[in-house]
Amino acid sequence: MERRHGSGTPLGEVSTPGRVAAAGEGISEEELALAARNHGLPLEALRHDVTPPGLHYLLTHYDIPAVDADTWRLTVGGRVRTPLELGLAELQALPAVTHRVTMECAGNGRARLSPRPVSQPWLVEAVGTADWTGVPLRTVLARAGVDDGAVEAVFTGADHGVERGVEQDYRRSLPLPVDADVLLAYAMNGGPLPPQHGYPLRLVVPGWYGMAHVKWLRAIELVDTPFTGFQQAVAYRFRQSPDDPGEPVTRIAPRALLIPPGFPDFMSRVRVVHPGPVELEGRAWSGYGPVTRVEVSADDGRTWTDAEVSPRGPHRWGWQAWHTTWTAAAGRHTLSVRATDADGHAQPLEQPWNRGGFGNNLVQRVPVLCRPLPDTRQ
Amino acid sequence: MERRHGSGTPLGEVSTPGRVAAAGEGISEEELALAARNHGLPLEALRHDVTPPGLHYLLTHYDIPAVDADTWRLTVGGRVRTPLELGLAELQALPAVTHRVTMECAGNGRARLSPRPVSQPWLVEAVGTADWTGVPLRTVLARAGVDDGAVEAVFTGADHGVERGVEQDYRRSLPLPVDADVLLAYAMNGGPLPPQHGYPLRLVVPGWYGMAHVKWLRAIELVDTPFTGFQQAVAYRFRQSPDDPGEPVTRIAPRALLIPPGFPDFMSRVRVVHPGPVELEGRAWSGYGPVTRVEVSADDGRTWTDAEVSPRGPHRWGWQAWHTTWTAAAGRHTLSVRATDADGHAQPLEQPWNRGGFGNNLVQRVPVLCRPLPDTRQ
Repeated sequence: MERRHGSGTPLGEVSTPGRVAAAGEGISEEELALAARNHGLPLEALRHDVTPPGLHYLLTHYDIPAVDADTWRLTVGGRVRTPLELGLAELQALPAVTHRVTMECAGNGRARLSPRPVSQPWLVEAVGTADWTGVPLRTVLARAGVDDGAVEAVFTGADHGVERGVEQDYRRSLPLPVDADVLLAYAMNGGPLPPQHGYPLRLVVPGWYGMAHVKWLRAIELVDTPFTGFQQAVAYRFRQSPDDPGEPVTRIAPRALLIPPGFPDFMSRVRVVHPGPVELEGRAWSGYGPVTRVEVSADDGRTWTDAEVSPRGPHRWGWQAWHTTWTAAAGRHTLSVRATDADGHAQPLEQPWNRGGFGNNLVQRVPVLCRPLPDTRQ
Repeated sequence: MERRHGSGTPLGEVSTPGRVAAAGEGISEEELALAARNHGLPLEALRHDVTPPGLHYLLTHYDIPAVDADTWRLTVGGRVRTPLELGLAELQALPAVTHRVTMECAGNGRARLSPRPVSQPWLVEAVGTADWTGVPLRTVLARAGVDDGAVEAVFTGADHGVERGVEQDYRRSLPLPVDADVLLAYAMNGGPLPPQHGYPLRLVVPGWYGMAHVKWLRAIELVDTPFTGFQQAVAYRFRQSPDDPGEPVTRIAPRALLIPPGFPDFMSRVRVVHPGPVELEGRAWSGYGPVTRVEVSADDGRTWTDAEVSPRGPHRWGWQAWHTTWTAAAGRHTLSVRATDADGHAQPLEQPWNRGGFGNNLVQRVPVLCRPLPDTRQ
């Protein structure tokens, strides 16, 4: 399933170990090539409850595969009583549910770490919220019949590549039994999945970082020992050093983001506002439970005031809106925002460094210039 | 309309002049912030005749504005006989046309220049093709009645920001009379414009770089002297030095792109193929006319062979498909592809450097590793 290519082999020479950037090292052309392919949510799009197509963040490890839905099949095998092979129409004939889910890349915040792990260089914008429609994974597993000895389900996508010397189809696992809300999703925001979001079928694991939501899903295999593939045991671990086995990356740590107020400078993205009351609003989420508190700082984190947080409502996996009013005075300011969830997790004020650059939910910083209104007599 | 803020003013301090990166200077965090907001076409998406929503390139100068289509109006004024104010329903009641248009950012290729102009850091991927539906601009101008003295139409978007010290709504002009194919477009690929592509109305100027296709269009003004606003007279000029008045950026220079063959390494994006025949295919386009020749090199530009180019067909502003077969031998290779159009424009083999980083259609380079098939007995 996975083929390891050592550093002495041709493939090992073009697919090298992970590394951390040197002090002062700018973003490399390789990181830029990833940033140009993948993309975040332009922060003003936080205004939408459901992210419009094309604005949701996107991270593709290899290539977006071309999948023909007419010949595509999902296989369900391994430690099951009845192996299954299902086409899209068969899945769509099963009772469907829709969940509104906020999804975030585990690497969000990576490029703000110092030193910087070299990989997809997200700042804070790798997030989006969509309505995902599909069949609960439990429904399909119940049809196949789970063997007593099965401990995990392994999900295989149609995307193929090589990563740090390991040639692979993208694969991840979840422990059994799976949560009731885990979906085999064939629709996003009421339409077929776009190619880049996993057409024709993807896994949706509400509350977990994006690496768990396997796209272009083609196989589910139940296994009786924990899966040790690359994306589970090598990548997506919180490690301090290369030989640290680390802890697995799972649920989304809390984060609040601010819709940058006023208008921007094209290049610096510094925001411009006028003196007086400025409405501040944004979204907050956590994979551990509802966000119970959002605090805002206008002095780069020295003092904080509470914002008003909307209740989670019917969408338990979607982000929550928050808002407050800031009275701006002329000068330079740095706005920050900080979420705390019902489980007691709060965004840190110091970076949570790890070698893979995962789960960096350090508070956002938005530089703002407040200047007097222009003299309209001119 | 535009307010200039000098370097001694607060706004001038956060909105500084354009600059060119120093030798060896990595991509800055400011450039990265633009790359994370905006995005290119993942090159495997060249396989689609019409780019699926969300994969088309996107460049937003300031913020995506929130426009309420119910209250939005397009005004047509200046040197016209009858000033107009049109709602979306009125525009949609006029006879509509659809054009398939390949659109490319004028800054595509900028980050491959040496030295590198500091701005949105595109490599080669700032392109996309869509079916745009709307009303010919000529139809609306004829209703308003163009005064004899009018020489240009100036288009104003709802997007507002500051750029190199100039506070502005995004504005561009076109000379009169306008081409018959210029559209006021309210639909993309058969649906309403997505917010990021100009909802509810944008200009589409087939054959021209993206800066001409004003998004979130709210006003058209006919003027009797050429427009000298920032985006016309300061930005989007081919200059060799800051004091060079330069030539305006207008039509799209020819380019061919290759769908990278085989599969990629996650980080280096080097492609892996096996020895033997490898099908190579991609797209080619030019704003000056049909592409008449596509050449492919497998030895980093030393030798070239002709590919087969599909005729332009009914879509005179859309890209053309091309394909050829390459016989890969074990080892490292660099694939390149080069387009020539009917007007005699060809992609250069040396970079066309200019201070804004516009129109760099230097040939694409795709590094490939060809390795023997794995021993299947293992």
